[in-house]
Amino acid sequence: MENTYAAAGVDVLKAEAFVGRLKKLSRRPGHEKLWAGAGGYASVVPISDSQAVALTTDGVGTKLLLASELDKLDTIGIDLVAMCANDLICVGAKPLSFLDYYATSKLVDNYADDIIKGIAEGCDQAGMLLVGGETAEVPDLYQDKHFDLAGFSMGLVSKTELITGDDIAPGDAIVGVASSGVHSNGFSLARKVVPKSKWEALLTPTLIYVKPVVELFGKPEVKLKGIVHITGGGWRNLFRLKDGVGFSIDKPLPEPEVYAELRKHVAQEELFKTFNMGMGLAVIVNKAHAASVIETFTKHNFQAQLVGQVTDQGDKLSVECNGTKFAIAN
Amino acid sequence: MENTYAAAGVDVLKAEAFVGRLKKLSRRPGHEKLWAGAGGYASVVPISDSQAVALTTDGVGTKLLLASELDKLDTIGIDLVAMCANDLICVGAKPLSFLDYYATSKLVDNYADDIIKGIAEGCDQAGMLLVGGETAEVPDLYQDKHFDLAGFSMGLVSKTELITGDDIAPGDAIVGVASSGVHSNGFSLARKVVPKSKWEALLTPTLIYVKPVVELFGKPEVKLKGIVHITGGGWRNLFRLKDGVGFSIDKPLPEPEVYAELRKHVAQEELFKTFNMGMGLAVIVNKAHAASVIETFTKHNFQAQLVGQVTDQGDKLSVECNGTKFAIAN
Repeated sequence: MENTYAAAGVDVLKAEAFVGRLKKLSRRPGHEKLWAGAGGYASVVPISDSQAVALTTDGVGTKLLLASELDKLDTIGIDLVAMCANDLICVGAKPLSFLDYYATSKLVDNYADDIIKGIAEGCDQAGMLLVGGETAEVPDLYQDKHFDLAGFSMGLVSKTELITGDDIAPGDAIVGVASSGVHSNGFSLARKVVPKSKWEALLTPTLIYVKPVVELFGKPEVKLKGIVHITGGGWRNLFRLKDGVGFSIDKPLPEPEVYAELRKHVAQEELFKTFNMGMGLAVIVNKAHAASVIETFTKHNFQAQLVGQVTDQGDKLSVECNGTKFAIAN
Repeated sequence: MENTYAAAGVDVLKAEAFVGRLKKLSRRPGHEKLWAGAGGYASVVPISDSQAVALTTDGVGTKLLLASELDKLDTIGIDLVAMCANDLICVGAKPLSFLDYYATSKLVDNYADDIIKGIAEGCDQAGMLLVGGETAEVPDLYQDKHFDLAGFSMGLVSKTELITGDDIAPGDAIVGVASSGVHSNGFSLARKVVPKSKWEALLTPTLIYVKPVVELFGKPEVKLKGIVHITGGGWRNLFRLKDGVGFSIDKPLPEPEVYAELRKHVAQEELFKTFNMGMGLAVIVNKAHAASVIETFTKHNFQAQLVGQVTDQGDKLSVECNGTKFAIAN
């Protein structure tokens, strides 16, 4: 059996088809007034002519099974906050509030406390407040020691700071910001191919990019044209920025060590379509603004560099990595 | 083994203790600025001196196991929206936006579509837009045909319309509004004691009280002092309104038929501490305003009546039901 994400039980294309049907089934008058809706990184609901509430929800997938099996539950909450907060900043919203949904077969005090400590730590990193949540004991749905987590986050964005991707043009710079590892996507595949003795490295918490990005929001001299949180679907997330443009990445960030193990088992294109491959966030700006963006991330102790540029090769993502060139299909 | 909610695997008191620890663990500077926080029906985050965003999250507990087993999945989404939207109105917020988190072992098209149809129907009943969500395939966490659902909702409330419970005083009227059945709480116990042949009645979707309540928000002549969504913990939810006052209910609403079955197996006080017992929502107003509240619910086809009053018997809830009198402890 091949080592693909689909073979590991997750069919991204089928899920995308479902999301298409979901949008049709839920479409109502009023949806046209949203500044951004389902399918974008965040739903952006205007509350006046000039201001909107941005909302995201996400989970951490099967990374939580790995956390359970390693009995290390104090960082999975950081991942949960990261998945939501990093999505909020992609539309230009400043994250404010977080709520968690935590469902388990039975509340075990030390597990629950560790999970909440992680969520509180993630909220600190994201500059958010944990304002509420739901803790559900759902016997019979979850097996012993199993649980699920979902996060819900809220931010605010003004009309003038909304990031839509519309201004992106060929020649724009792609600034890549380093990830800490696999972050919170692709674990159904990662768990399958990485030997259990090396799982600890998979558990490294997702980086939260909020603070440098919010600092960039405050710099009127830097126009942020697009921000991409590299999540499920890997580098294909770049295609969410704008239709009709392409992307060329020829100076990728170094891959965290865990990818050496993944590369032993998974083909290169599948890797880039599933994982972040060392780049957790990408920021699109005019070339003239790239240095300022890199400097801001560096100041906040994130590794950032110019990794490539936007091209006029519509819907094409070409990558040069370790001396080989390949393309990633939309 | 006794037929109590705790014996069915859900320890409400332990969960409440955890929520207390959770509040301590997550407490940060900034929490004091919230108009309402964790533990209330909704978290209320001010975005100006006069306006706030209200946020809720909730799930439907083991009602979804029952829906799975009966292979009837097109109404569980209504329950999910109800659990969130009915909480929002308790703080005076007008519900606007909904997001769902839907996690399952494997996307099965017809199940997923049915679930989303229910959510969309619920949003229509609540006057909300389904603006986004997360659909997660999490193999190995959920068993075949199993899934979990969490809902997140957002509403807006102005400072002048915020419902805090502070104005509640002895002598105020308690207007009860009928439920459709068990709604979405207590299913771990209900599933255990109700024979499978009668499960269909348990699945009746939760009523969504948004439209009449939002109409009441628009009536300056009716001062809504408190609104209680009767959820987990049953009538103990009344104690969430205000410390130091008591409640006397002597004209309860008729109990939907399903309660006759539950009464065969569960002691009376346990029933009132677990289920809504026919009252899905309670509204506290000055006695002079009760008729107007009842009239508004009636106009929207909800059964509502004066069920009792607020007393000066601090933290005491006395009930007269079917000719017997009893008290429910906080």
